[in-house]
Amino acid sequence: MTTPTAAMLVIGDEILSGRTRDANMHFLAGALTRHGIALKEVRIVADDRPAIVAAVNALRETWDHVFTSGGIGPTHDDITAEAIAEAFGMSIGVRDDARAILQAHYDRQGMEMNEARLRMARIPEGAALIDNPISAAPGFTLGNVHVMAGVPTIFEAMVASVLPTLAGGPPLLSQSLRIERGEGDIAAVLSDIAGAHPEVSIGSYPFQKDGIYGTNVVVRGTDGAAVDAIISALADAFPEAR
Amino acid sequence: MTTPTAAMLVIGDEILSGRTRDANMHFLAGALTRHGIALKEVRIVADDRPAIVAAVNALRETWDHVFTSGGIGPTHDDITAEAIAEAFGMSIGVRDDARAILQAHYDRQGMEMNEARLRMARIPEGAALIDNPISAAPGFTLGNVHVMAGVPTIFEAMVASVLPTLAGGPPLLSQSLRIERGEGDIAAVLSDIAGAHPEVSIGSYPFQKDGIYGTNVVVRGTDGAAVDAIISALADAFPEAR
Repeated sequence: MTTPTAAMLVIGDEILSGRTRDANMHFLAGALTRHGIALKEVRIVADDRPAIVAAVNALRETWDHVFTSGGIGPTHDDITAEAIAEAFGMSIGVRDDARAILQAHYDRQGMEMNEARLRMARIPEGAALIDNPISAAPGFTLGNVHVMAGVPTIFEAMVASVLPTLAGGPPLLSQSLRIERGEGDIAAVLSDIAGAHPEVSIGSYPFQKDGIYGTNVVVRGTDGAAVDAIISALADAFPEAR
Repeated sequence: MTTPTAAMLVIGDEILSGRTRDANMHFLAGALTRHGIALKEVRIVADDRPAIVAAVNALRETWDHVFTSGGIGPTHDDITAEAIAEAFGMSIGVRDDARAILQAHYDRQGMEMNEARLRMARIPEGAALIDNPISAAPGFTLGNVHVMAGVPTIFEAMVASVLPTLAGGPPLLSQSLRIERGEGDIAAVLSDIAGAHPEVSIGSYPFQKDGIYGTNVVVRGTDGAAVDAIISALADAFPEAR
């Protein structure tokens, strides 16, 4: 069984301007890895319709799944749903099921439906709704594109709604080894081991902490025994590892 | 004077797997905004040569500047310099000036030059070196692409080396207003103001804190008087704003 692939598209001027530090990418990366889906690419674009259309079309043609975050609220700068509809060449309009979900939520909260809130019931033709247990306004899945909110609590709840519906491959396992030697000292041995074991990926990440220079070596693969064996080989090669 | 544009390319399996949370994007976004360069797109790709080549070529043709982070160390998974050379159709090899910088650093530290460390002196033909005051191994600028390390302290130091050499436009100013009303309540007024003032961008970001639902409205533009005027208009429209 091969591992399905995915991309993420983050939509938001506030990330690109440096005002807000994105949190959804790191969350999704971990959730996908645990589910056995490999996140292969991320793009961040502005609240700009042609930019969103171009990015979503490039990503959905390349990867098995695309997850978007941001731009599905009630205000003028929320243009993601329209852009996704355009990318797929589908129409978009207020859908009765989405409207009913919103109306029930506002009734419970004693809030009024208005034209702005009704925008959140605009769903492209053919899409399936994604449950939003936090603030009701749904996300949606169209083809292989999963469109979700940017607010982290809502994004995370929507990921929890969508992920169980997607087939995952074998989970990607990883183990790491902390070696108190610089990357330049261990590079030759690492390269030999990596070359001999194409079934795993071996990453090398330098650190400097409390005056100690060292390297964290991370071995990743879907075969746990292979990952174990390579960690053992590394530990033998570098007795100072732990 | 128009505002120059930029993109960032983050290179690293460790970000996509969720092991590491990227910090460089948020840092660069803020530094560019203050310098008067507009960050328009970010891509994150794996340690995969064709992926790096394709991304860097797409970005450098679209935006005025491209900043990359990651993949310029001494180990087998550090393939950024080769990929950049390939993207530009340039040769790459050990360059005397880069080698001399590394040799002087290792001499000071009592460390030995070896084949792995010498890889960090491999610089594409025609590139200008970027100073690395932390660990010596230089970044480089080739055309409009600035290639920097992924370790945040080194990335930040390299940005500090490069940015003063680039022309910035007028800095993008921003002011924000905290309104204790939901986005759906203020969307109509916001939309009217945004439509009447295309010279600024108005972003709307919902928050929920301590049981209060509200919206942070951010007005951005290069004309400080225009930003002030719109913040005043918003404060008049929403007396509960602060």
